[in-house]
Amino acid sequence: MREVHIIGIGQTRAGEQWERSFRDLAVEAIQAALQDANVAEVDALYVGNMLSGELVAQQHLGALLADWSGIGTIEALRVEAADASGAAALRMGYLAVASGAQEMVLVCGVEKTTDADDAWTKAAWASALDAEYEAAQGLSMPAAAGLIMRRYMHEVKVEREAFAPFAVTAHANGANNPYAMYQRPISAGAYAKAAMVADPVSVFDVAPLCDGAAALVLCPSDRFSDRATKPIRIAASAVATDRVAVHSRRDPLFLQSAYLSARQAYNQAGVQPHDIGLFELHDAFSILAVLSLEACGFAERGQGTKLAQEGAIGLQGRIPISTMGGLKARGHPIGATGIYQIAEVVTQLRGEAGANQVDARLGMTQSLGGTGGTAITHILHP
Amino acid sequence: MREVHIIGIGQTRAGEQWERSFRDLAVEAIQAALQDANVAEVDALYVGNMLSGELVAQQHLGALLADWSGIGTIEALRVEAADASGAAALRMGYLAVASGAQEMVLVCGVEKTTDADDAWTKAAWASALDAEYEAAQGLSMPAAAGLIMRRYMHEVKVEREAFAPFAVTAHANGANNPYAMYQRPISAGAYAKAAMVADPVSVFDVAPLCDGAAALVLCPSDRFSDRATKPIRIAASAVATDRVAVHSRRDPLFLQSAYLSARQAYNQAGVQPHDIGLFELHDAFSILAVLSLEACGFAERGQGTKLAQEGAIGLQGRIPISTMGGLKARGHPIGATGIYQIAEVVTQLRGEAGANQVDARLGMTQSLGGTGGTAITHILHP
Repeated sequence: MREVHIIGIGQTRAGEQWERSFRDLAVEAIQAALQDANVAEVDALYVGNMLSGELVAQQHLGALLADWSGIGTIEALRVEAADASGAAALRMGYLAVASGAQEMVLVCGVEKTTDADDAWTKAAWASALDAEYEAAQGLSMPAAAGLIMRRYMHEVKVEREAFAPFAVTAHANGANNPYAMYQRPISAGAYAKAAMVADPVSVFDVAPLCDGAAALVLCPSDRFSDRATKPIRIAASAVATDRVAVHSRRDPLFLQSAYLSARQAYNQAGVQPHDIGLFELHDAFSILAVLSLEACGFAERGQGTKLAQEGAIGLQGRIPISTMGGLKARGHPIGATGIYQIAEVVTQLRGEAGANQVDARLGMTQSLGGTGGTAITHILHP
Repeated sequence: MREVHIIGIGQTRAGEQWERSFRDLAVEAIQAALQDANVAEVDALYVGNMLSGELVAQQHLGALLADWSGIGTIEALRVEAADASGAAALRMGYLAVASGAQEMVLVCGVEKTTDADDAWTKAAWASALDAEYEAAQGLSMPAAAGLIMRRYMHEVKVEREAFAPFAVTAHANGANNPYAMYQRPISAGAYAKAAMVADPVSVFDVAPLCDGAAALVLCPSDRFSDRATKPIRIAASAVATDRVAVHSRRDPLFLQSAYLSARQAYNQAGVQPHDIGLFELHDAFSILAVLSLEACGFAERGQGTKLAQEGAIGLQGRIPISTMGGLKARGHPIGATGIYQIAEVVTQLRGEAGANQVDARLGMTQSLGGTGGTAITHILHP
């Protein structure tokens, strides 16, 4: 397999983009990535998106975005894995370059959630769950996370306040990210008083669904000699799955998909968890951040909140997470999120993260679909 | 790149499957393909589907079908390219094996259209068009095909009856396919009297949307030595796109995506159109079959209907098409169709097509998304 490098990134601001259309957001991110890579032509485009059919009545996104961005009649397809759709599109781009089938490849994640009625959007998000055995019974994504979080609090014997550092850290970091939806820090006191969404999941335990697009340019080693920006190598790319319905899992507090995909990624890159210098994890819910840290080997079982309370997840900590705000403060434009995560790690490894810069040799991203039915892990190396 | 072979195929009957759920159809096809390949375990699953979010409220199909079919915690993702989604999933499976990332790979196409209200299903199908500039203005897929067909009749100066051989051939061949939705021949007289759907597109010019699933097992050369069935090599895999909106195309009667992807496929396989022994094309509408034959080099511009009238598309003709019924008689379970096409060519190249057997050394498939915004071409070789 050929080595695959990221030579360009582009992002729109995540948030409520009332005056922009779905396709315009994608084109803005694509053009920014092409400019960053100093590339005019590409051979293929892979689009990560979950809900454009339901929310903007548009499928066929590969051709549509190749068309609308003016990049021509190239191969263009869409990949979907619920909330992990952006990472899934990167996986396809990685395979296309690694195989030798394509040379210069664009990957774009995009979602527009604000064009549809809010209740409809939330119902559509629940299609990440098992439609027949979870969603049809009334379960929503926040409710599913609430059940898992409540069980965790019961088993591990921690209070709700133990989860506060995840929201506080994310919002502190988001304050310095111009692409973040929320750019204001919050206090532990604000977390304690937060309104409930699905008890014990409060508004500060769930990432805001929003609009946004992000894009990457990939190429093999022999194509970046003259690039202005530092190429970042994809040292590992791994996908694993689990039972989609939480009630079908042997242990609802163990993210098997996260464990398996992280283990594969460590093997591919020849590294251990302690080699990872920053970890952009999938904090769609505080409880998922905790379970990801545990499944990926950064904390023992039941010790995820303790790790955060000790300050290990901060910018100067042992394993910084959500360094540009995470899903929680940057926002969660569903199918775009996986590409934002990659763009943020690239920004860090280039040394361009400004006030949020961490000292890291290797960065890892992990996107979860739904409550962990899918996990996609990438390890990046300068 | 490693060579990729198809060692197993599985199909459900296409049609109105009122008593079967979306996931059960997929699992039936997956199990049939695994049995045909004599394989118990696979490393990855790629799912082709267009409309499960809209029609059965289920996204996240990769994990869901890996879960529901019991094949475990493997890599599993969904790929979408409107009506060409099945072929798009094969493209991803091909890249995964060709790159060396995965060894034994399942590809499954599935669609369940009958669980939703008929008008809603047809509106969802229109999301293959440009949502803002076509569908939002009231254009449906049959109406778009009607405009193209009317223009063709005007430019080329042919009457509606010139298209009759496409429906007659498809239904004659479908009569011998146990997986086909319609298994009765029709006459040219019946075609002439057919009710209009979107004049000049009659009920015999549009393929029926329906339920169905089909699956394939792929592997590299060194993994099939002990297989019972004859492995079929994927000699070419190519994707190209075009403007999605027909009014944006320089020439609405030329399928640029079909032309480009076929040309790439011919180059990859080192063949010419006259080397192709059968062509499972995308006859979602008679007019698309005509334009595909012309774009892929089997007929000169404006000569597609003449080719059919001369009998060239029949089982004994120069370039047999729709040999197991095509989209028109086998049915068009949207995201599954691309996999049915491949399974049918594999059946032919294995010499297992019974009464419909053609004498062919090389077989080609082509799936179109929408009215040709995407075209995906594969060439198969025993």
